Amino acid sequence: MPYKILTVSREIGSAGHTVACLVAKELQIPCYDKNIVDKIAVETGFSPEYIKQESEYAKSRSFLAYAFSSQGDPSIMGGMSPADRIWIAQSKVICDVAEKESCVIVGRCADYILKDRKDALHVFIHANKDFRAKRLVDLYGDDGRSPIRRLDEQDDKRRVHYRHFTGRNWGEAKNYNLSIDTSAVGIEKAAKIIVDIMKNAGR
Amino acid sequence: MPYKILTVSREIGSAGHTVACLVAKELQIPCYDKNIVDKIAVETGFSPEYIKQESEYAKSRSFLAYAFSSQGDPSIMGGMSPADRIWIAQSKVICDVAEKESCVIVGRCADYILKDRKDALHVFIHANKDFRAKRLVDLYGDDGRSPIRRLDEQDDKRRVHYRHFTGRNWGEAKNYNLSIDTSAVGIEKAAKIIVDIMKNAGR
Repeated sequence: MPYKILTVSREIGSAGHTVACLVAKELQIPCYDKNIVDKIAVETGFSPEYIKQESEYAKSRSFLAYAFSSQGDPSIMGGMSPADRIWIAQSKVICDVAEKESCVIVGRCADYILKDRKDALHVFIHANKDFRAKRLVDLYGDDGRSPIRRLDEQDDKRRVHYRHFTGRNWGEAKNYNLSIDTSAVGIEKAAKIIVDIMKNAGR
Repeated sequence: MPYKILTVSREIGSAGHTVACLVAKELQIPCYDKNIVDKIAVETGFSPEYIKQESEYAKSRSFLAYAFSSQGDPSIMGGMSPADRIWIAQSKVICDVAEKESCVIVGRCADYILKDRKDALHVFIHANKDFRAKRLVDLYGDDGRSPIRRLDEQDDKRRVHYRHFTGRNWGEAKNYNLSIDTSAVGIEKAAKIIVDIMKNAGR
């Protein structure tokens, strides 16, 4: 197989997670998503709930911003903010699972963390706002706020987080080997295209 | 067929033009690339050579910059710079060919010009620098300068031109329905994926 590892970055509501699961099922390899949080919890000692809150959506908080906040004594944290500690543990866990086995990894800047692996295919899943808004409400319910505004807020958080930890622009085509608009291509078709590339890429 | 029109935007050296030709041949539809320049020439009265030089790679020149240059009297040009006149003619020609027939259109901001057509699939072809540098030298020869520097210069010109006329960021995944790295996927595989989506997208 030309590619052993697949990283899937995605916009919320784009069905990126569903695409990742379909690919993993078809290739009969594990899909690391929320379950990777437990591994990060073991590395850091933080609770899985705290990691979920602080990692992928964390606003960029520098060491200094943390040091002067009321949240903790940075000397106890080894001079790093919790977000920085989670980032380091996350990078280690992702490198370890990629080294150990063929797998799919969803989110968590895995595209950047594994950017130098020649056996990793990096995919970005996006979709138009109407498609995403409908899925957002179907999956997470209607909380009374505009779904478009909720999408914009999540996009902003991911953009800031990605930029902070990778120095790259989130959603730039060149960061990925393949970017697919599921609202134009279809969810199952997107998964089939990725499986085909994983198995038969002509590079 | 779910999609009637294909627009192909591409980085120089990424084999985007080859991919576009392969798709057009497989779908038995015309591919508009350099031949669209002749249509723009008829619309504007400029020579094809001048249009090639001034259009896709033109630096953004505002009306005022043109008006105070020594290149012409803007009153004769209807108050517009040559680049602006070419843009308007180019938009008209691209809308006309898309309206008339199923086709592939390479470059010329066709993704933006046809962004509201539901029957148009927009693709961006990119590749890593080594792949592009090798193709650049194979196709256009070695002019003594660093191939990477030549790529960077062309990328900058396209970025500025695209930003000036569309207000969007060139190479942002969200501008396209599909972005493919030919150095990771393969040229023929990229063409096959696009043909499959044109014929069978599951949207």
